[in-house]
Amino acid sequence: MAKRAFPLSKVYGLLEPGPVVLLTTARSGKANIMTMSWHTMMEFEPPLVGCVVSNRNFSFEALKATRQCVINIPAVDLAHKVVGCGNSSGRRVDKFKSFGLTPLPASSVEAPLIDECHANLECRVVDTRMVNRYNLFVLGVVKAWVDPTRKDARTLHHRGWGAFMVAGETIKLPSTMR
Amino acid sequence: MAKRAFPLSKVYGLLEPGPVVLLTTARSGKANIMTMSWHTMMEFEPPLVGCVVSNRNFSFEALKATRQCVINIPAVDLAHKVVGCGNSSGRRVDKFKSFGLTPLPASSVEAPLIDECHANLECRVVDTRMVNRYNLFVLGVVKAWVDPTRKDARTLHHRGWGAFMVAGETIKLPSTMR
Repeated sequence: MAKRAFPLSKVYGLLEPGPVVLLTTARSGKANIMTMSWHTMMEFEPPLVGCVVSNRNFSFEALKATRQCVINIPAVDLAHKVVGCGNSSGRRVDKFKSFGLTPLPASSVEAPLIDECHANLECRVVDTRMVNRYNLFVLGVVKAWVDPTRKDARTLHHRGWGAFMVAGETIKLPSTMR
Repeated sequence: MAKRAFPLSKVYGLLEPGPVVLLTTARSGKANIMTMSWHTMMEFEPPLVGCVVSNRNFSFEALKATRQCVINIPAVDLAHKVVGCGNSSGRRVDKFKSFGLTPLPASSVEAPLIDECHANLECRVVDTRMVNRYNLFVLGVVKAWVDPTRKDARTLHHRGWGAFMVAGETIKLPSTMR
């Protein structure tokens, strides 16, 4: 499905609910995928995202060296692929091939978009000062894409040890909170 | 309902799905509540939580000065109170009274637990080095409480401007991810 550019000012609405995401990196022509849940918005616009990528993960060195990545947001239809990516390491496996995911070129970074995800956020690392102590990278989202036909995609939310909460209904309340 | 102590090693499973939380602080005998969604786990055990508290919020100075708070997790039954806390400021309002929430003494910090929330995490600020630049506090969870009868409480997940996703069903997948 063709994705459309999505306003950077609205990116927080995709990540603030806390979905499991698939982080893609690319280094020396080799792309990888990491399943990740430890992320938070840090600024609305330009959007900043803090995320913890363990230095035990294969993606850590690629992220640190290239300072580029893509945050891809999967929905429940990709649950088994999300778990597959989390259960394996890019040191041993080409996860795109192993799990039947399609890499697409990004517009601003070397890391690929995952076609099957309904939203893709191209990011650059903007601060590494918390990496040594906490493995916390601060990312700036530089370009966002969404599939306009899947605005109500049901995201996955990790509860630990194989338990995933699937996004339920959305309710509207008289909130003035951005 | 009487809460029970909850193992610190399992705290990440409460926050990793990305719920809206109510942050309580207390300063000079005055307690306050702040609605918050910008948080992430940073370490499993002892549990570390990164959270962004804007310096425009009344809670900011209390958190910075006292270095203590409680992360309270509300479910959908408290949705209107959550929005009320988000729409108002502790500078002008006693939110416990205004929204009919019950403060209970915590065991290790001065900030109160919110009785109506199904989980409460007593926290101490352990790192303020990212506060000046990002308003990011690193919290260490020192004591956790849950209502054992409400393990499947349906949390709220903020999508922006009054839209809240309500936690849906939990599925089990063959994941080895902690």
